[in-house]
Amino acid sequence: MKKENIGIGLLGLGTVGSGVLQVLRQNGGAIRQKVGTKLELRRIAVRDVQRNRAVAVDPALLTDNVNHVLDDPEIDIVVEVMGGVELARQAVARALGNGKYVVTANKDLMARHGVELLERAKAQGRNIFYEASVGGGIPLIRPLKHCLAANRIKCLMGIINGTTNYILTQMSCAGKEFDEALAEAQAKGFAEADPSSDVEGRDASYKLAILASLAFSSKIDLPDIFVEGISAVKLRDIRYAQELGYAVKLLAIGEDTSAGLVLRVHPALVPLTHPLAAVSNEFNAVFLEGDAVGEVMFYGRGAGSLPTASAVCADVIDAARTIRHEVDNGIVEVTFGTRTVVPISSQRSSFYLRLKAKDRPGVFASLANAFGDAGVSLDMIIQKRSDAETAEIVLVTHDVEEERFARAMEVIRALPTIRSINSILRVV
Amino acid sequence: MKKENIGIGLLGLGTVGSGVLQVLRQNGGAIRQKVGTKLELRRIAVRDVQRNRAVAVDPALLTDNVNHVLDDPEIDIVVEVMGGVELARQAVARALGNGKYVVTANKDLMARHGVELLERAKAQGRNIFYEASVGGGIPLIRPLKHCLAANRIKCLMGIINGTTNYILTQMSCAGKEFDEALAEAQAKGFAEADPSSDVEGRDASYKLAILASLAFSSKIDLPDIFVEGISAVKLRDIRYAQELGYAVKLLAIGEDTSAGLVLRVHPALVPLTHPLAAVSNEFNAVFLEGDAVGEVMFYGRGAGSLPTASAVCADVIDAARTIRHEVDNGIVEVTFGTRTVVPISSQRSSFYLRLKAKDRPGVFASLANAFGDAGVSLDMIIQKRSDAETAEIVLVTHDVEEERFARAMEVIRALPTIRSINSILRVV
Repeated sequence: MKKENIGIGLLGLGTVGSGVLQVLRQNGGAIRQKVGTKLELRRIAVRDVQRNRAVAVDPALLTDNVNHVLDDPEIDIVVEVMGGVELARQAVARALGNGKYVVTANKDLMARHGVELLERAKAQGRNIFYEASVGGGIPLIRPLKHCLAANRIKCLMGIINGTTNYILTQMSCAGKEFDEALAEAQAKGFAEADPSSDVEGRDASYKLAILASLAFSSKIDLPDIFVEGISAVKLRDIRYAQELGYAVKLLAIGEDTSAGLVLRVHPALVPLTHPLAAVSNEFNAVFLEGDAVGEVMFYGRGAGSLPTASAVCADVIDAARTIRHEVDNGIVEVTFGTRTVVPISSQRSSFYLRLKAKDRPGVFASLANAFGDAGVSLDMIIQKRSDAETAEIVLVTHDVEEERFARAMEVIRALPTIRSINSILRVV
Repeated sequence: MKKENIGIGLLGLGTVGSGVLQVLRQNGGAIRQKVGTKLELRRIAVRDVQRNRAVAVDPALLTDNVNHVLDDPEIDIVVEVMGGVELARQAVARALGNGKYVVTANKDLMARHGVELLERAKAQGRNIFYEASVGGGIPLIRPLKHCLAANRIKCLMGIINGTTNYILTQMSCAGKEFDEALAEAQAKGFAEADPSSDVEGRDASYKLAILASLAFSSKIDLPDIFVEGISAVKLRDIRYAQELGYAVKLLAIGEDTSAGLVLRVHPALVPLTHPLAAVSNEFNAVFLEGDAVGEVMFYGRGAGSLPTASAVCADVIDAARTIRHEVDNGIVEVTFGTRTVVPISSQRSSFYLRLKAKDRPGVFASLANAFGDAGVSLDMIIQKRSDAETAEIVLVTHDVEEERFARAMEVIRALPTIRSINSILRVV
């Protein structure tokens, strides 16, 4: 017997929660048709039931006790959009324990406890849907689980933090330095008052953990991801990169290599001909390579109330269909192993280096020798006069092991002719 | 009780069929884990069982009688990769009649008879999966059905023909004229010996019919789609477009407007800042706008053996899960209405126009007056001297109704000072 009327409970009514309400109202008719029955929003847990809200909501639906949602037998699907980690984890666990399906937009939760919670859901014969936890409205989780299910994923590269992409785009297009671009991003609401999680790459590393665990069927421990932010990127480097044919982007990279998984987040020079180079401002994109499909890319708005709500509501629809048609929970097919992660020192990269040296004969030779002795070969070189006595030199190396490059840099730092090492960036 | 071992039958063993075999072999272990049971390839119908094949295959599997596949009770999923329309239609109908699920990569079939066959499948409690019919390995059908299910799709714009995109890219980047670029595409296997279906836009119109029917939940009749190919596009127009800040692409466009559906395929000037402008060579991409998600784009290889097989195999996995978990067929949620289609004459566009005129006082004024009298306003103008007596003029209009622009053109063609109208292209 098909279940009639499916009950929804919402945890949180902030930016995403309000968007969910708006989408369910706006497209309720079409959604009802797709599910085959009505979705009934039965209860919303909020911190303060008295607060004025941007979205109109029946006060009778509000409660300040999450358990009124989690324990309500009339609620089949719990939508967790309250954020945070510990309370959200307890709430999700309790919802699963009560036999409910869970939809979450919480990247911190899924990055830290995703595998554990998914296994708990499986043991309960339920499921957690988390499309909205990465890339806002851009379909990423479903493509990895379903559309590309016949592929072995070889690598993924993503621009999955809108704040840093906005800042880097403004630096590149409007010629702003980092601080000015950050201030503008804050003024436009693309960066938070405390931007450190975005700017230092942590936000992107959480999202990478979620994507990589699915792409490579492996548990991912956050400390295994190498993370470097963009606060040291200078306008000058972006200009040189353009001259060399590159855009500078904060990339989250996952690769399945014979030595293990490569997992890293850092600013990188991306060739202007690569589709990721054209992803501007607050937009996100994830580029994947599968052994059958070849290269694919998914592009769109990685944040915002309605885009994120689009993903949450798609998950709600899927959960509702699962319930209505008494389908197996759909999670049986996902298993997470534990893969070796290659330490950053053993990974390979091509490097961009900007430095200042005394402008005198033999300086470039000493630099070239230091690289040659360490077995690092050079791909591109620009030398410009900085002032009467100083030359600015920009180099791009060929692919090399990180520790080999680091050894060469030790020698170079010690050269008496080198005045300063200004920038080191990776090239993809 | 869960069904053990699911039987697959293949109709056709050409480019796509061989790719399907290869993917099932290459990633069989992972696929088995995802489905939860083994997929057994039981029979392959081919035209000539004796023919030498690129892919190794057990001769005992081959038959030259499609009914040996369609009527085999051990076969649960029929994979139709034989192509053509009439025989494929009969085969799919017979497979459904025999209670089988169908996976097809056949765009001609789905564009012409998709809605009818999907309704037949529904009546049988079965389903047809057709992700591979548009965009090769790029996920498009599943995102429209599932990931964006909570959205009203406002418009879609796609580069969904690799041959024409390759030709236009070669014209733009290598400075080739159409004929030379076409010959190169043929030499590289990106264009067929008879390229007319690609070059004249028919292939793209079939794919648009499939995408638009899903995006707008409507039956689409092929004759309702306005189609114009790229054979009249000149290198000179591509150069002017670049000067004005545009790339020239063959676009398939679908829009849901208050007057009805807009459905058209034609070469178009796309702003260089638009993500579609960066889609080069044989790559495809579909750009969508939903009322919640905003702008999203899906990018990848739109053709080829393995990319297409990636989509076919994802469908096979979905069909197998459906069977194994005794799920409802998943089609109930898709219903196709019949929407009004706006005739091209009532649609609105901005136009690019290149013409030659006598180089004498008042010529430009007569042109400007003709546009002004018809209510067409101009956005951009370039005038260059062509020879001592002739000026070449390039104009871009603001948005205008097609028939209003056509009326202005009638007047302009009759002006004694106009030597030739060389190109008219639309701008998006």
